[in-house]
Amino acid sequence: MGTSHSEAAARPHGSAPRRRGPVLERAILEAALEQLGTVGWNGLTMEGVAVGAQTGKAAVYRRWSSKEDLVADALRTGLPALDEAPDHGGVREDLYQLCRRVRAAMYSKPGYALRAVLHECDSEASERFQELILTGVIEPSQRLLRAVVERGIARGEVREDAAHEAVYDVMPAMMMYRSKVCGSEWSDAEIAEMIDLVMVPLLRR
Amino acid sequence: MGTSHSEAAARPHGSAPRRRGPVLERAILEAALEQLGTVGWNGLTMEGVAVGAQTGKAAVYRRWSSKEDLVADALRTGLPALDEAPDHGGVREDLYQLCRRVRAAMYSKPGYALRAVLHECDSEASERFQELILTGVIEPSQRLLRAVVERGIARGEVREDAAHEAVYDVMPAMMMYRSKVCGSEWSDAEIAEMIDLVMVPLLRR
Repeated sequence: MGTSHSEAAARPHGSAPRRRGPVLERAILEAALEQLGTVGWNGLTMEGVAVGAQTGKAAVYRRWSSKEDLVADALRTGLPALDEAPDHGGVREDLYQLCRRVRAAMYSKPGYALRAVLHECDSEASERFQELILTGVIEPSQRLLRAVVERGIARGEVREDAAHEAVYDVMPAMMMYRSKVCGSEWSDAEIAEMIDLVMVPLLRR
Repeated sequence: MGTSHSEAAARPHGSAPRRRGPVLERAILEAALEQLGTVGWNGLTMEGVAVGAQTGKAAVYRRWSSKEDLVADALRTGLPALDEAPDHGGVREDLYQLCRRVRAAMYSKPGYALRAVLHECDSEASERFQELILTGVIEPSQRLLRAVVERGIARGEVREDAAHEAVYDVMPAMMMYRSKVCGSEWSDAEIAEMIDLVMVPLLRR
């Protein structure tokens, strides 16, 4: 019994037209995010994702051998990209816009789902999803922060010895800390306050 | 059947002499910490703690109605006190000594146990133990940080507008972030670097 046979058998009559490659893949990843949002990590099954994506279980298993692989990919590809540093001509405005983008990633649907998964999954899977926060949110935002600081130095606005890992850690550290410890969701006003009271004094010449 | 009967029955022959009040209480709390270190949150039982403290299960239940209550008290009373701000005449040295004390609390036996419990317990108990980190480590260290900053302002060493919650959050945020994200255990050198590259530039006039 071939895989395509069982896949076709699992697909309801009158279902979506046959999709292949990236299109079907995207539908499966979106269905996985959808499932995470509704039934959570514990409730999510490969079968449920297949139904949500209007495909067969075999089509899911052909691409992802486990629920953990599938969810990791769904979260990774779903997170908003943090790929270009804001460039508004001043470090204060650039930092403000950068923080808003990081917040958008933290509170995106995949961002929420990622935090929820971390609460539900066992400690082995947890390591993998923690890694996803690191490579998907923290490292990109530190790269952008570095770009903003270096441009500020080039403009003569930022002190030269501020170009240091420890300094790049401050903003993500504050964002993580206040959402964890104070339950903050980082309003625009809180972001502006943090920039003005911490980042600007820390960076200025 | 009285409580003291079952307590006596559960106590092995030739056990510790009858202790009362604070002495017995301390023995039970220490046994609970010991159990956390060896069998973890999931392995810990009121019975096991009673055996460790050389007393009966009833003596434990008389004081703590649940494992959660007992563990919370054991962790709370076991954490090193953060009650007096270092005062060495300069903000740099004071911050350095303060960070070392916070580190000592984080990596004390109850500090380790607290983090381990958070990984093992369910989300309801987790909220309670998170609260313990807040009231037992974070809030006290912010209070001490405030004292150090205010003394620095009084000496004319620290800018006056640095006396702000957002500024007091930076050091604990960095400590939490780097231990969570980078797995840092905060060597003396890392503490000194953070003080020199972040806290001193942030605070100076």
